[in-house]
Amino acid sequence: MSATTARITAVETHDLRFPTSRELDGSDAMNPSPDYSAAYLVLRTSDDGPEGHGFTFTIGRGNEVQVAAIDTLRAHVVGRSVAGLCADPGSLYRDLIGDSQLRWLGPEKGVLHMAVGAVVNAVWDLAAKRAGRPLWQLLAEADPAWLVSQIDFRYLSDALTPEEALALLTRGRRGAEQRTAELLRRGYPAYTTSPGWLGYSDEKLTRLAVQAVADGFTQIKLKVGADLADDLRRCRAARAAVGPGIRLAVDANQRWDVAQAIEWTNALAEFDPYWIEEPTSPDDVLGHAAIRAGVGPVKVATGEHVQNRIVFKQLLQAGAIDILQLDAARVGGVNENLAVLLLAAKFGVPVCPHAGGVGLCELVQHLSMFDFLALSGSTEDRMIEYVDHLHEHFLDPVVVEAGHYRAPTRPGFSAEIHRSTIDTYRYPDGSFWAADLARTEQPA
Amino acid sequence: MSATTARITAVETHDLRFPTSRELDGSDAMNPSPDYSAAYLVLRTSDDGPEGHGFTFTIGRGNEVQVAAIDTLRAHVVGRSVAGLCADPGSLYRDLIGDSQLRWLGPEKGVLHMAVGAVVNAVWDLAAKRAGRPLWQLLAEADPAWLVSQIDFRYLSDALTPEEALALLTRGRRGAEQRTAELLRRGYPAYTTSPGWLGYSDEKLTRLAVQAVADGFTQIKLKVGADLADDLRRCRAARAAVGPGIRLAVDANQRWDVAQAIEWTNALAEFDPYWIEEPTSPDDVLGHAAIRAGVGPVKVATGEHVQNRIVFKQLLQAGAIDILQLDAARVGGVNENLAVLLLAAKFGVPVCPHAGGVGLCELVQHLSMFDFLALSGSTEDRMIEYVDHLHEHFLDPVVVEAGHYRAPTRPGFSAEIHRSTIDTYRYPDGSFWAADLARTEQPA
Repeated sequence: MSATTARITAVETHDLRFPTSRELDGSDAMNPSPDYSAAYLVLRTSDDGPEGHGFTFTIGRGNEVQVAAIDTLRAHVVGRSVAGLCADPGSLYRDLIGDSQLRWLGPEKGVLHMAVGAVVNAVWDLAAKRAGRPLWQLLAEADPAWLVSQIDFRYLSDALTPEEALALLTRGRRGAEQRTAELLRRGYPAYTTSPGWLGYSDEKLTRLAVQAVADGFTQIKLKVGADLADDLRRCRAARAAVGPGIRLAVDANQRWDVAQAIEWTNALAEFDPYWIEEPTSPDDVLGHAAIRAGVGPVKVATGEHVQNRIVFKQLLQAGAIDILQLDAARVGGVNENLAVLLLAAKFGVPVCPHAGGVGLCELVQHLSMFDFLALSGSTEDRMIEYVDHLHEHFLDPVVVEAGHYRAPTRPGFSAEIHRSTIDTYRYPDGSFWAADLARTEQPA
Repeated sequence: MSATTARITAVETHDLRFPTSRELDGSDAMNPSPDYSAAYLVLRTSDDGPEGHGFTFTIGRGNEVQVAAIDTLRAHVVGRSVAGLCADPGSLYRDLIGDSQLRWLGPEKGVLHMAVGAVVNAVWDLAAKRAGRPLWQLLAEADPAWLVSQIDFRYLSDALTPEEALALLTRGRRGAEQRTAELLRRGYPAYTTSPGWLGYSDEKLTRLAVQAVADGFTQIKLKVGADLADDLRRCRAARAAVGPGIRLAVDANQRWDVAQAIEWTNALAEFDPYWIEEPTSPDDVLGHAAIRAGVGPVKVATGEHVQNRIVFKQLLQAGAIDILQLDAARVGGVNENLAVLLLAAKFGVPVCPHAGGVGLCELVQHLSMFDFLALSGSTEDRMIEYVDHLHEHFLDPVVVEAGHYRAPTRPGFSAEIHRSTIDTYRYPDGSFWAADLARTEQPA
């Protein structure tokens, strides 16, 4: 079958779970024992060309609900023309968010919206692979008018119009060639969260913080919010380990109400925190604005749990955040993240994406690199989070050197997971879980 | 087994779908052809006492994802003490919204949160049945301090504290006896949406509008937002049918951006609309505030898609709404709706619940009646939506007479659906769907 007539023949889904809770990797004030997981999908095609891969990151229980949500989108995808999808991923994105019956389950939020994001991201993986380019390059080289066509401006027009988006993207491309050379030479700045998980001992925190600086990172991040005395002690240890020249971000993972967020953040001021991340509910635009007014000069950052472009719009309109932390797999995929990047550019707020989890580093690097090359044009005060686990499961894992993400060169969105990983960690029938469940089910 | 040792033995779930799209019942500008559905659950117990029933309302596709979400909560419920649950439904509510792994799928929004609401509401149904009281009465007679204990104040304390809640509930009870007599005598005011579905002809609209006034309703509601010329014609017909003394609400079901909402609403001003409902995205607090500033004296109403108490809080803080339309099955159940009712009382905004769908009238009447008896103490500018379909599937259907909901007298939350309905409309194996699918699968 020729490339022009190829169709999507199947949406294969897998419930992948990694037993991370056993090492307290990823532990924070709200998520004491996550089992990092992915609701993973493969777009199969009728030809021999590359397939598309995508996923939603979750932290364990309920991953099967996320898989069910991806499954319910299948009817929109199977039978579509591969060439048509690659030429216009937005056509599918609009159909998915516009399904009038499915929309009731959101709209555009939570499980269903993350499922849309997983499918849409898989289409971009497919499109980039078939174009023979890493996604950052495909996006950076794309015609600005085509990028604008990929965005749904519904509910955005009071803050961003298609005309403004086109102007931002047209202006953003100037000097892209020089920046591409810089990106390929130096990579994109990263910061690391690896030292700061709440479940780690002070000794481990100190050791990893020292190592992070030695590895070339200029910012580290600590989880806070469970106990103030602990936080004071841990921030003191971290600051002592890294010295005054390194940025120290703190992350409360939504633990606080407004007044408590202000009080607690100010109590940590002596350690010169660079930003306070997720001080309260990701839904609380006005709360973030109040917190920002109360904790300056500490910056306010949020985004990993922000459900869609409409809440990002308001966070920017209300002057509620200094740093926008988009997530590659929380919203409706690349198309919606293009809107979020444009909103941030319009309001002049730097984007420092959320990463970690399963494969989030792999995905977001493409979005930040596109932003640098063809939109914001700057890496000033911009960094991608880096967490050093689970990369080994990806065919095209991120490479971080001297505190920078190397630009991926392999075609696609870096989303593909090894078949051996699927066979091992698929829940509950992969070899790891089958053995684990057999063990726990044994009579005493 | 005695009542004190009874346990929850099972959470039975059913995917119920009604083929409403074939009559265009429920059609609006965003939902052209809904198949009204319910992800329905039964809490089975180890004794012979009453069981608990609850559900999430959806409009068709994806109802199986909603069922999967309820299924994933099962482990939190099975094995619990019935007496313990009935004495403190909040203990389960807190465990469900606090499950750190499941929380990632929201937090507190969308499919997972609606599942929490369904389970929590089933517990209240169980509790009310076992107390031998309709839920409105159980709530109205409850100790204010106990009601406060049922609320999660996280993310609310900048707008409502437990102390303020206790004061509102304590004051709210004054004169409850007299109001109970009034409620039992007159019922609770209703308005009707039955004439105004977008798919209805002008003739049907006019006929049903005239009938609504004859039936004692003092407010009707029309769907708008698809086409302005149509809306002008339909509003003219409706106003002509009901005369100047009847309130005419209009509902755009999220169709517009901010500027368009203001323009369109003002274009309908000649027909004296009482409120504009869901003018834009339910997530857009600042957008609603801008619209409200632009359409006065028309009131702004929203809530049926407002995901949780945190967004309601902000709508009130921002002065974005005149009318709060809580929904019984969108948020985390009775416990969260107690918080929403208290927020509305604190800010002095009347609550006019969203209803219709499957069983939403049956549920919300209990909340409004409680609000009247023991919190706001008033029915002024307060009405419950009424739509006259699908009530026949409930064991304790609402009774609306002379434009008022009669107070239910049967113990429980009026949530229970007939077994024959389950056998008929369970998807895809109920008798209706099995026959329907067999028909459509027949070769031509």
